[in-house]
Formats: sequence, C-alpha cells, structure tokens
Amino acid sequence: MSALKALVESSRFQNFIIAVIVINAITLGLETSPTVMAAAGSALVMLDRVALAIFVLEIVLKLVVYRHNFFRSGWNVFDFLIVGVTLLPVGEGVSVLRALRILRALRLISVVPSMRKVVNALLRAIPGMSSVLTLLLLVFYVAAVMATKLFATDFPEWFGSIGASFYTLFQVMTLESWSMGIVRPVMEVHPLAWLFFVVFILTTTFAVLNLFIAIVVDAMNTSDHAEQEETRELVVTEHELVMAELKALRTELAELRAERGGAAPASGDQALASRL
Amino acid sequence: MSALKALVESSRFQNFIIAVIVINAITLGLETSPTVMAAAGSALVMLDRVALAIFVLEIVLKLVVYRHNFFRSGWNVFDFLIVGVTLLPVGEGVSVLRALRILRALRLISVVPSMRKVVNALLRAIPGMSSVLTLLLLVFYVAAVMATKLFATDFPEWFGSIGASFYTLFQVMTLESWSMGIVRPVMEVHPLAWLFFVVFILTTTFAVLNLFIAIVVDAMNTSDHAEQEETRELVVTEHELVMAELKALRTELAELRAERGGAAPASGDQALASRL
Amino acid sequence: MSALKALVESSRFQNFIIAVIVINAITLGLETSPTVMAAAGSALVMLDRVALAIFVLEIVLKLVVYRHNFFRSGWNVFDFLIVGVTLLPVGEGVSVLRALRILRALRLISVVPSMRKVVNALLRAIPGMSSVLTLLLLVFYVAAVMATKLFATDFPEWFGSIGASFYTLFQVMTLESWSMGIVRPVMEVHPLAWLFFVVFILTTTFAVLNLFIAIVVDAMNTSDHAEQEETRELVVTEHELVMAELKALRTELAELRAERGGAAPASGDQALASRL
Amino acid sequence: MSALKALVESSRFQNFIIAVIVINAITLGLETSPTVMAAAGSALVMLDRVALAIFVLEIVLKLVVYRHNFFRSGWNVFDFLIVGVTLLPVGEGVSVLRALRILRALRLISVVPSMRKVVNALLRAIPGMSSVLTLLLLVFYVAAVMATKLFATDFPEWFGSIGASFYTLFQVMTLESWSMGIVRPVMEVHPLAWLFFVVFILTTTFAVLNLFIAIVVDAMNTSDHAEQEETRELVVTEHELVMAELKALRTELAELRAERGGAAPASGDQALASRL
Repeated sequence: MSALKALVESSRFQNFIIAVIVINAITLGLETSPTVMAAAGSALVMLDRVALAIFVLEIVLKLVVYRHNFFRSGWNVFDFLIVGVTLLPVGEGVSVLRALRILRALRLISVVPSMRKVVNALLRAIPGMSSVLTLLLLVFYVAAVMATKLFATDFPEWFGSIGASFYTLFQVMTLESWSMGIVRPVMEVHPLAWLFFVVFILTTTFAVLNLFIAIVVDAMNTSDHAEQEETRELVVTEHELVMAELKALRTELAELRAERGGAAPASGDQALASRL
Repeated sequence: MSALKALVESSRFQNFIIAVIVINAITLGLETSPTVMAAAGSALVMLDRVALAIFVLEIVLKLVVYRHNFFRSGWNVFDFLIVGVTLLPVGEGVSVLRALRILRALRLISVVPSMRKVVNALLRAIPGMSSVLTLLLLVFYVAAVMATKLFATDFPEWFGSIGASFYTLFQVMTLESWSMGIVRPVMEVHPLAWLFFVVFILTTTFAVLNLFIAIVVDAMNTSDHAEQEETRELVVTEHELVMAELKALRTELAELRAERGGAAPASGDQALASRL
Repeated sequence: MSALKALVESSRFQNFIIAVIVINAITLGLETSPTVMAAAGSALVMLDRVALAIFVLEIVLKLVVYRHNFFRSGWNVFDFLIVGVTLLPVGEGVSVLRALRILRALRLISVVPSMRKVVNALLRAIPGMSSVLTLLLLVFYVAAVMATKLFATDFPEWFGSIGASFYTLFQVMTLESWSMGIVRPVMEVHPLAWLFFVVFILTTTFAVLNLFIAIVVDAMNTSDHAEQEETRELVVTEHELVMAELKALRTELAELRAERGGAAPASGDQALASRL
Repeated sequence: MSALKALVESSRFQNFIIAVIVINAITLGLETSPTVMAAAGSALVMLDRVALAIFVLEIVLKLVVYRHNFFRSGWNVFDFLIVGVTLLPVGEGVSVLRALRILRALRLISVVPSMRKVVNALLRAIPGMSSVLTLLLLVFYVAAVMATKLFATDFPEWFGSIGASFYTLFQVMTLESWSMGIVRPVMEVHPLAWLFFVVFILTTTFAVLNLFIAIVVDAMNTSDHAEQEETRELVVTEHELVMAELKALRTELAELRAERGGAAPASGDQALASRL
C-alpha cells in the first residue's frame, strides 16, 4: 500500500502522466485534420483510447491510495470530472461529448505545479470580487426583465426571453455592435431606448471597472503591507538594541552610585522595570 | 411608538422584507414567460399586488416611525421613489411603467447591508472624478455642436440634432463601429472628417483613462496612507519610550551630582525642560 | 494702466467673461436647431456677434496690459488662437469655419481655474509617455508603409496611400471591425495577412497598455513618495531629539567629572564633536 | 584594428547611421506614392541601394571588429536579421520581401539609446507574464480543438481547421463582432454555442486582465521597494549614530568609575561588546 503511494507520488510517475497528457492533446488536435485522419485515423483513435485507459488507471490508483481523502483536493475532483465526462460515450455518441475529450489537456494545469499555482492565484482574486459580482448579477437580472418586457414583442430574436435578453445584454456590456447592431434598430421602434441602454452600459462598465480596481488594489496592498512590515520590524529591532543599551547605562550608573555611597537606587529604575 | 420602531428595525422584519423582494423579483421574472403566464398568470399578478402592498405598508410604517427624518437617508428616498414609481399605474397603464416594477428588485441593495456597502464604495469614487467628468461633458458638448453643424444635412440620422450627435459621439467613444459604421461613410462626403473623429477619440479615451487612473490612485493612497500611519505611530511610540528612558537617566545623573556635592543641576536640565 | 490691469484681473471681470462664454455656448448650441433658428435666428446671430466682440475686446485689453508678456502664458495663446480662428470669416464663409466658433466654449477651461488645473494635470502625464509614443509612431509608420506596399493594389480604399493605411491601422488598433471588416476580406486575397495584423495588434496594444501603466505608476509614485517623505521627516525629527538629549547627558557627565577631579574630558567628547 | 573599433563606436559614425536610417525610411515611404515614383522613381531606388550598401558595410565593419562577440548582443542579431532579410531579393523578387525593406526603419530602436531603453523596459515585463501566457495558450489550444470539432462542418470559413479556429477565437477575445458576426450565426445551428463562447470570453479576458495587473503590480513594487529601502537606510544610519553616542556615554561612565576607584568595568560593557 505505501509502495503504491510512493509510486503515485513519485516524480517519475507524474512526468509520465504529463507526457501522456501532452501526447493525448496533440493526437486530439491532429484528429481535427481530415488529411491526418485519412492517413492515420485508426492509430490516433488507438492512442486516444490508450491515453484514456492510463488516465482511468491513474485515478483508480489514487482512489485506492487516498480513498475518501481523494475528493478533498479540488484538483483531484477536477481530474475526476474531466476524465469522467470524457468517459461517458465510450467511442460512440454525441459529437459534443467527443469534443469534450480535449478538456483532458486542461489536466496539465492540475498536474504541473507551476500552472496550478498560477490558476490558484487567479482564483484567489475571485472572493474579493464577489460582492461587486453579486451586484452586477442583480443589475443584469433587473435589466434583462425590463428589456424582455419592453422589447420582446418587437425584437423576439434579441429580447424574446429572459435568457435571450441576458445574452444580448452581455453583448451590449462588451460593447460589441451595441449601437449599430442593437440599439439603433430598437430606437426606430422605441425612440427612448437609448436611455435604457446608455444607463446600462455606464452602470455595468463602471462596476466591471471597479472589479478590476479591487484586484489591482488588493494585489498592491499585499505587497505594500509586506514592505511596511519589513520596515516596522527593522524599527522594532533597532529600538530594542537602543533600549538594551540604555538599560545597561542605567545599571552602570546605579552601580556607580552604589559604589560611591551605598545609596539605594532611585525611582528611575523602578520606572524602567515597570516599562520593560 | 417605540414598539413600532423596534418592529421596523428588528432583523426578523428586515429578513421578511428581503424575502418579499426576492419572491417579487422572481414572480416579475416569470411574468416575462408566456407559457408561465398562461398557466399561472393570475396567481403571479396576485403575488405582485401582495408584494406591492407589503412594500407600501413598510414605507408607511417607516414614515410613521421616523417622520421627516425618513427622507434624511438617501436609501429611504431610493426605496420611496422605486415603490412610488411602480405605484403610479395601478394594474393598468403604459407598458414602460409596468416594466419599471422590476426596479423593486434593486431594493435588495438598500436592504442588504453588505450590498449597500458595495454601492456606497462605488459612489464614493464619483466625487474624485467630478472635475474630469465636467471636462468630458464640455468636450462632448463642443463636439456635438460641431458635428451637428458639419454633418447634420448629409447624415441626419446620426447628427441631425444635438441629441443625435451626443448619442453618436457616445457610440464613437465606446469605439463601437466608429470607423466602418460612421466615419468611413462620413469621409465619403467630408474627406477630412477623420481629423475631427480621431481627435475626439484620442481626447475622450485619454480623459476616461484618467478617470480610471484617478480611482485606482485614490484607492491605493487610502490604503498606503493607513500603512504609513501605522509605521509612523510605531516610530512615535518607540521614540517616547527612548525619551522617557533618557529622561530617567538624566534624573539619576542629576541625583548622583546632588548626592556628591549639592551642586545645582546645570544648564542641561533646563534644555530638557524646554524641549519636553 | 494699472487701473486697466486691476480691471482685467478683477474677479468681477473674469466672472463676466465666464458668463459670456456660457451664454455664447448656449446660443451656438441653439443655432443647430432649425426650429429655434426660424423663431429667433437673427437674435442668436446678434448675440453671437456681441459675444465675439466682447472676446476680442478682452484680448485687446490684455494685450494692452501685458504686451509681449501676454504670449508667455500657453492659456493666453490658446484663447488668442480660438478667438482668432473664429474671427476669420466674419459672418460669411466656409461652413467648417462657422462650426469652429463653438471651440470658444473651450475657453471655459482657460478661464475657470479648477478646470485649468485638471487639464494641466492631464497634460503633465504626457511627457512621461513621450518615449513610448515615439516608439508607437515608428511602429505605425513602418506598418503603414508595409501595408501600403502589400495591399494598396487590391484594397485601395483602405490601404491606397500611407495616409489611408495610417487611418485603417488606427482603426485596427482600436479593434473596431478589424477582423470581420478588414482582415478577413484582405485574407481572401493574401491568406497570410493575419500574421501582419495580429503582430500589429499585439505590438500596439501592448505599447498602449504600457503607456497606461506608466501613468498609473507615475501617479502612484508621486503620492507614495510624499507619504514616505513624511515618515522620513518624522524619523529625522525624533532622531534629532534623541541626539540632543544624549548630548545633554554627555555634557552633564563631563561636568560631573570636571567637578570631581578637574580632569580633562576624555576622547569620547571629541568623537561627539567630530560626529556632529 | 583599434582605430576601426574607435571609428565604429564613435558618436559621429552612429549619428551618420541614424541619418541614413531616417533618410531611407523617408525614401521607402515616398516609394508608396505613384506620383513621386513617376517623377523621381529611379533616384529613390538608387538612394535605397546606397542605404542598403551602407548598412551592409556597417555590419561587415562590426563583424570585423567584434568577430563572434558581435552575435552576443541581441540588438546586433536584430540588425543582422533585418538587413539580411531585406538583402535576399536584390532588386527583384516577391513583393512581400520588398515590403519588408521598411523594417530597416526599426533599426532606429537598436541605434538610438533612449528607444533601446524603452523597448528593453517593455521586454522586461514579459517574463513576469510568461506563466499566465502559457495558461492562455493552453486555453486557446483546448478551445480551438473543441471549436473545430464542433463547428468545422457548419462554419468551415471560421472553424475549418485548428488554425482558422485560433484566428477566430483571437478575434472573439478582442470582442470584435464576436456576437453579431460569429456567435449569433453559430447559435442558429447550435443553440447552446453561447455557453462555449461566453465561458471562453470570460476566461480569456480575466486572464488578460491578470497579465495586465501583474505588470502594474510589478512596476509599482519595484518603485515602492526603492522608497522603503531609502527609509530603512535612513533608520539604520540614525540608529548607528545613536548607538555610537550611547557607546561613547558608556565609555565615559566607565572612565569616571575607573578614575574614582580603579574598579574594573562591570558586566554591562561585556553585554555591549557581545551585542555590537
């Protein structure tokens, strides 16, 4: 059992898996070329099945080794889902599910530590944006309901349902053809429609801008805080040296007085004692 | 009266209002679906009326409790206007006013404290942008008047009036179809039109960029200032400790001299006295 | 003469000029409406002439007061050019020159101190961008010459001359219809054209991004530097207090020794003297 | 030999080369104008050949002077490639290669020190972005394979091959006509295609945003670190002054005790010695 664990965690095993992922990604890419498929289609399909078998075996091994702890890591769940999804239509089935097989290439992220770190860094930015994202979603919902009520009858293709309105408003937020493509035609029927869309654009782009700013400011603060901490530690360290030196001076002075007349050390020392 | 106030401010009351807002937002969303309306239209309309009645009652209660202080809070005014507007055409009326009912979902912002905080943060960024916004508005006005004078006769749809020019220039500023959709056609009649539009784009995007930068820099400064304040406070605190220690040393030294010969403390002490 | 100077610099005079600018801007805006022109066209034209006369008089007064120093201020030159240009076709002439009259509204910037400050702040950002701007211009020139040589014969409308290429490349840099409008049609004739345009887009957007970053970083540094300066000044001030205190201690100690035995102060004092 | 080196490195030689580059850039620009070519075509072609000869001579000289060290500088390799490429079709040949001659104008970057510095600064930002760029490339590859598998048969022009999909996805990432031009037509055949494209847009723009943020934060940190270093150096310098002063005080006190009774200095001095 611990031999199996050592195998699964060995860098040789991980490098082998990385190699399989890369080769599989390449063969799946080559499958898109009719020329290559005509020449070596069966070999590519074979390689894909072998890669899938290796991935399944890898996950089975890890399940055996880690048991229920396996699912504690988000990355393991990610691997499990990606391999699981592409396992559904073994060989046959819907073209969409076949297309999802290339998602296995994303396993590179979970397997290569440096890429995992980058994605973790990206994901860490999300909680800081959650409140603005919620607000954005609310604005989208309100705007989608309004747009559907106002424009559904005249422009069913764009605003026929809440879903259609959501999509069209997302397009408007990205500023793609918002005026020439959407708002100008709408304005021919509803002349005041610009009011709705201009307010929507200003609101959502301002919110997205603030999402962005939140990330920048957060990243800056983290690093600024570290720099300031270093400065403060320096100040504290040096302060302690000065205080130690002053204390030594006081001791020496006290000793001098003691030598001279045997007089008891005065209130000053007590003040020092209470302070330190 | 104070019982009423306790009720209105209780978290149970607020959670109830939040629930009504969410349910009302969902029913208003469902109203956009013809299938749902055919199946349960009257129930939805009923639910909407009940929700509206609750909102009206809530505002009446708050008006009774807070009286004229009610309108001192911007959020209360916000609630009042949103409920008031959707009250205008009771049941019947213009479709636009019916569509405005979904604005009630925005009351979530005024009712949920965390969302209120986010919006307040967004609004706080606006005063810092007011000077650049004024400048931007001036540039827009000048450009709109010029565009109308120059292009109104040839392109009435885009530049027929100052309003139309404002809208078209807003579209140009968002870079949507500015060249293929607007400027290239205009250049076929006025070959030098690119000069006007390129200058307009450079000016406005530069101004918008600076709006953005102003917000980032402001947000950064606030947090940087806090960090620096902490460092400075540390420096001051430690300085005071050192000074107290030094003062104690001086006292002790003075006592030593006094013990020795009863001589009056020298100029040094006066310097200390004048400094502290 | 100094009475004239006092008049020109009085806030009453400046407020009067601001009022004339605002009124003139409004009348010029109203002139774009055929309805208003039909009703009160001659009054508007009259008002415009009066405003122009006031502006000319203002500049003549300033020229008399400041003489050649008048042109030392960039804002005066700005006023002079704007009034001068709109003076060229007195009443009659080309429509473009008539449209330029609205530029007078921009005089608000030179007259209102707060707006002048904003524009100065915006202009201050430009020198820091000059090196990247030069680079961007060089890239544009090289790309325009290449595009003209490669695509002029097949797409004369877009790349017929260096000027046309410059404009089209500017459009491509703003990402407006770059692919569907320009590059896909070009690729039907030159299949590798995407290479040229993708490299151009990546290069120029990266350069523009860095322009932007330069401004943000510069603005941040200025404020960060100020904060750090404050901290450093605090450190220096407190250091001086501590040093003064230490010096007083030394003096007192030296006096103590002198009182005791009349012995000459030891090497320590010299070290202090050489250090301060 | 060292005379040749002195010549090549003299500022007169470099200014001459800069002049040749600028003149050559202008003549190549003029070559795009049929009118100019008709009037002075042969002179321009002659000037171009002379400039090329000078560039070749310059590189030969530098090769003679620096030998294999020549290729150690990336800028020399840049010059070598640019001149080399434009040398390939002497006078005749493919139009693309003729168009590449204008790349020589980019030699301004390698020759003018200030522009070299700007480009170096831009390039320095790239390593910090490499991890996110790798991630972005992986996402693009996965999306391109998926898009090809899903949409190749219905939209061969946009997604016919991995290359075509890469280009179309780049266009979608720049948000150019992504909805009206690409996704809406695709959705008419595959109604759920929006899911693929919206996820792609959100993922890639979020990644690009983080690329951007990485650069800003990095630039800020560098300058913030420098400021903090300055503060810390000040703190250290002043600390050393205070410690020196304290040490002098201790010495003096020790001497005082020695004078008084010849007693050996107490433990305090040892503490000081161990601390310094």
